[in-house]
Amino acid sequence: MNKTEIERLYEALKKRAEGAARDLKGQETGDKLRNLYVGCRGFLQTLEIRELTSLIPRKSYFVFADGDRTSRPVNASLYSDSLSSETVQAVLNCAVSAMAPSTITAAIYTIAMSYCCANDILKRGDQKTPGTFFELLIGHLVSSALGVNPTTQITAPTLDLNITLPTDFVFDLGADKSRVHLPIKTSTRERVVQVWAHQRVLDGMHGVARFKGVLVVMAETNKQEKAETVTEVCLPNQWTAYQMYIAQMFRVYYLDLPEPYSRLKDRYPFIQVKQFGDFFFEIDKIERSGLVG
Amino acid sequence: MNKTEIERLYEALKKRAEGAARDLKGQETGDKLRNLYVGCRGFLQTLEIRELTSLIPRKSYFVFADGDRTSRPVNASLYSDSLSSETVQAVLNCAVSAMAPSTITAAIYTIAMSYCCANDILKRGDQKTPGTFFELLIGHLVSSALGVNPTTQITAPTLDLNITLPTDFVFDLGADKSRVHLPIKTSTRERVVQVWAHQRVLDGMHGVARFKGVLVVMAETNKQEKAETVTEVCLPNQWTAYQMYIAQMFRVYYLDLPEPYSRLKDRYPFIQVKQFGDFFFEIDKIERSGLVG
Repeated sequence: MNKTEIERLYEALKKRAEGAARDLKGQETGDKLRNLYVGCRGFLQTLEIRELTSLIPRKSYFVFADGDRTSRPVNASLYSDSLSSETVQAVLNCAVSAMAPSTITAAIYTIAMSYCCANDILKRGDQKTPGTFFELLIGHLVSSALGVNPTTQITAPTLDLNITLPTDFVFDLGADKSRVHLPIKTSTRERVVQVWAHQRVLDGMHGVARFKGVLVVMAETNKQEKAETVTEVCLPNQWTAYQMYIAQMFRVYYLDLPEPYSRLKDRYPFIQVKQFGDFFFEIDKIERSGLVG
Repeated sequence: MNKTEIERLYEALKKRAEGAARDLKGQETGDKLRNLYVGCRGFLQTLEIRELTSLIPRKSYFVFADGDRTSRPVNASLYSDSLSSETVQAVLNCAVSAMAPSTITAAIYTIAMSYCCANDILKRGDQKTPGTFFELLIGHLVSSALGVNPTTQITAPTLDLNITLPTDFVFDLGADKSRVHLPIKTSTRERVVQVWAHQRVLDGMHGVARFKGVLVVMAETNKQEKAETVTEVCLPNQWTAYQMYIAQMFRVYYLDLPEPYSRLKDRYPFIQVKQFGDFFFEIDKIERSGLVG
């Protein structure tokens, strides 16, 4: 499996999900995701693995390496190089009700990381493609679970003009249910305030909590190239201020959940930050209309 | 004047404004800005000037060029290569009451562009230094005009904990006056929602309009390298939604004012977008406490 082949599989996925079909939730999109994952896994198996010095308590990380080219940090307890084809199939079809949330999270982490790490090695400095891929992967899983494809713009009539805005994925589940606002990020850092700001615009345009905000993030790791160390960049007090003063996000899900954020659910304003595998077991809460969680 | 010399002058400015002295408003900071401007102008005079094809109505642009290295687009009617030393001195000391707002705007544009363009040529791909320089230049002018140095963090006591957040420049003008929230950007694009979001946090923490929000931006130009054309990237409907639903910015000032934004002051919600030279003649409105403009 080489660069050209992986690019071909990525383009096939992108065409299926974003082209004329625009069927993010469909099984065919799941199949393209699986093909791409299998291709990337094959490529990664040819690479060297190098341990990093983890400065994050209770987490260990490695990178894939090809000479002086290295991938992003990979969480050793989440990534599996022996994911069974049944597990991959089940996860990409959202047939996960018999699986533990931590198993689901680890499988999705593995699928997500495989493409991102392969791309890190093959295309130095390319941040955009992994971001788009991660949006397609999570978008596929959430839209399959909700049974509805998303849109990416929203129109609000005002007294003076109709305003149409581009958005992250938004889902219309029907008049008696919530709508869902689904920003998806490989990491957040200082840009995360955008998520709360867009939620605030939706609340202002359409009524508070007409859209439930669900943020999905891959990880907050940061690699120090020279020192070969890895840290997590977390700003929990800023999140607290955003949740108090800008808008209320209903859920934040991580594949590689940072502990400083997981603690936010235990203190005011109780931001519900969880591993992504939990999503599949609280869809009814997300779908339920209204302000109460 | 060479790269090392310009770097030395930039570091001298940075040390004065951000070092132990932290005196952004002082005349010494103004002197360092002038030295840096004079150095950069000398360097730029050794370069070739190439016209761009402007796709922006009623504006023409050029770039400075050194072989295949080119600067950002420069507005030909704002930039002057013969700014008198009296004008530079007057502007950097805020002694501008006898000057027309358009003259002030053009002089500051020239000073701002000189360093940014010199840096574009000398350090390919460096976006950070021009951004920091522009913050120091505008920060110096605004703090000199207000007579107060800014801070860059803010603390809010909540029922549960004290939250300290990093911010853009904020100014405390005294108990009977407004406070000022001053984000400064070389361009905004999709990141601009941060400005409204931070204003919202300040409003939520401290009461609506306790801080007046004043955004200062250099330009919204975008150069198409191959075609040698220049466009402006403007999202006026998004700004309208942010001003309606997130928070209310009191003023937005540009050095190179895009016409689609200048029109926003004439329709609801009447965002006051103006050339930066106007700032010096409405300081009393910015200082005046309370909700009414």
